[in-house]
Amino acid sequence: MRAARYHDRGDIRIEQIDEPELLPGAVGIDVAWCGICGTDLHEYAEGPIFVPPEGHPQPISGESAPITLGHEMSGTVYAVGAGVDDLAVGDHVVVEPYIIRDDVDTGPQSHDYHLSPDMNFIGLGGRGGGLGERIVVRRRWVHRIADSVPLDQAALIEPLAVGVHAVERSGATAGDVALITGAGPIGLLTAAVCRARGITTVISEPSSLRRQKAIDSGVTEHVVDPTTEDAVARVRDLTDGRGAHVGFECTSVQPALDTLVDAVRPTAVIVVVSIWGHPATLDMQKIVLKEIDLRGTIAYVNSHPEAIALVEEGRVDLAPFITGRIGLDHLIDEGFETLIHRNETAVKILVSPSGAGLTEG
Amino acid sequence: MRAARYHDRGDIRIEQIDEPELLPGAVGIDVAWCGICGTDLHEYAEGPIFVPPEGHPQPISGESAPITLGHEMSGTVYAVGAGVDDLAVGDHVVVEPYIIRDDVDTGPQSHDYHLSPDMNFIGLGGRGGGLGERIVVRRRWVHRIADSVPLDQAALIEPLAVGVHAVERSGATAGDVALITGAGPIGLLTAAVCRARGITTVISEPSSLRRQKAIDSGVTEHVVDPTTEDAVARVRDLTDGRGAHVGFECTSVQPALDTLVDAVRPTAVIVVVSIWGHPATLDMQKIVLKEIDLRGTIAYVNSHPEAIALVEEGRVDLAPFITGRIGLDHLIDEGFETLIHRNETAVKILVSPSGAGLTEG
Repeated sequence: MRAARYHDRGDIRIEQIDEPELLPGAVGIDVAWCGICGTDLHEYAEGPIFVPPEGHPQPISGESAPITLGHEMSGTVYAVGAGVDDLAVGDHVVVEPYIIRDDVDTGPQSHDYHLSPDMNFIGLGGRGGGLGERIVVRRRWVHRIADSVPLDQAALIEPLAVGVHAVERSGATAGDVALITGAGPIGLLTAAVCRARGITTVISEPSSLRRQKAIDSGVTEHVVDPTTEDAVARVRDLTDGRGAHVGFECTSVQPALDTLVDAVRPTAVIVVVSIWGHPATLDMQKIVLKEIDLRGTIAYVNSHPEAIALVEEGRVDLAPFITGRIGLDHLIDEGFETLIHRNETAVKILVSPSGAGLTEG
Repeated sequence: MRAARYHDRGDIRIEQIDEPELLPGAVGIDVAWCGICGTDLHEYAEGPIFVPPEGHPQPISGESAPITLGHEMSGTVYAVGAGVDDLAVGDHVVVEPYIIRDDVDTGPQSHDYHLSPDMNFIGLGGRGGGLGERIVVRRRWVHRIADSVPLDQAALIEPLAVGVHAVERSGATAGDVALITGAGPIGLLTAAVCRARGITTVISEPSSLRRQKAIDSGVTEHVVDPTTEDAVARVRDLTDGRGAHVGFECTSVQPALDTLVDAVRPTAVIVVVSIWGHPATLDMQKIVLKEIDLRGTIAYVNSHPEAIALVEEGRVDLAPFITGRIGLDHLIDEGFETLIHRNETAVKILVSPSGAGLTEG
């Protein structure tokens, strides 16, 4: 089968590899669609980061580069391994792409399996990837979805789960007002989760194209251009002068963090969703005098069931966020390069590893 | 009566002023002891900060400098105003020294009255102060204490309430391990609250005299000199390598914050208790990848009842933290100047405004 494999920084190759072996307790999936994530772009442009370099095997998977990429995937079950009796061939599924030690509790009550030692992601740290035609995934990390959810939209359930977890971390409830800095994929999907939960969002985003996408996708009615407008004042207008209940930092840009600290009310929560490649400067006096909670959030933990329910129940429409569909052969030129150099119009570009999705569409 | 009044930076005068007028709903208190707080030192050396300068009245109290100082006070009721029927002359009391708008809910369920607009403190923003012989305080802010609590120790209930609130903010529970940076009064009293709640503390403090005080006062068995020892390693030794459950930042020093970020485990809480006069640098990637909660805390909110109970039940012994007793005449030379210039040996210096406490002791 064909797969996109990461060899090193700037070196991703479309190669012919063996089909994965079906293992007991695992599920064989024909990948329908796989999204390109910002993390993939970082690996390509600045990595290896999550990818274990050649000769340095990932402690859990035992694998090292070359590694099949792709962790935002949907597909159809083509086989189930021994002991798997609650999924059947033909089921539509998505993958929660974790590589986690066997001795970690990954049960439904765990709130921290995603922070366990040596955690990595399928499609970055080994165990196949969604940018290959087929993948075999342990049952624990496979989530069934209703046939009514189009498989292209289903590929966005993984980043939607990031938004679900971020909103969980915020503690925000219906009626609250949230300021979101940044209208990239994660900012938009976090806003979509907020909308579904009855949380009003204001999105601060300097790109007019991205602001328009935020409006057109229906996730918010309130967008602010921070280069010309006062986001803090806009939030105050919506909150009787009291400030936002929560903030979501989805930019990794210093002025955005400063704005959030000013825009939230006392006892508010600011959730940092973006990965910062550099230290932040924090006005600690405001953190103290307003008793702000600044909370990091990473990926998801038992968040997929809610993400799936939001889509199945029609409370989140993922269709507006799909801005491109390509095959493996155009992964770099139409996928990575578009997202790196023309990312104002692109939100999520989906890849059909077999090309089947392209001909059907 | 005599009182210490703040006129301006570096200008605190012991003056003869009128006795306060007893008002309906208020309580007249003969001040027994009043502690000198770090906030008072800041007003003296760098202020006015909380004190409203002459001609700029505090919005709630309507007062401006000169202002009677002192907000860490204990005393005996000498009169009660009309409508006060649950306190009697002779009762021992402490003051929760808030100046808060009348329209703010200060009921027992409120978690944010201390963050309400224009909040200030008795003894900084007006309404008398503990560094005067008598004070009249609204009933809401007067807390009765058992006669078994010595009045000198009772003057430390106010800073102890800061520790109670900080520990509340942390969410720490019995069996947890906390790293506290700084063994000044607030670090020590936060450790005392932790000990009473069954939370093991490690205190990182560069001063050997302060480390010794932490040991001698019985609040911890674990002290670290961050200039020669690895606080992160010490915490790991106590936690099976997993890191502290919580951290308390009581220094406003950058390396302390960095140490806390490294020393806590994933999903941990770091409570910032100190007032930072400068921005902090925060390793946001660690905040995100460990899902750390960084929480500001300021003063107290419905924290006095627990602080009083801890002392009345003998679960916190405040005696070791009293390192000096003076009269008003020596407020500056033996009080402020000692704390500013020789603060390694001084923890809490108490002032007897009338001098009665000095002759009795």
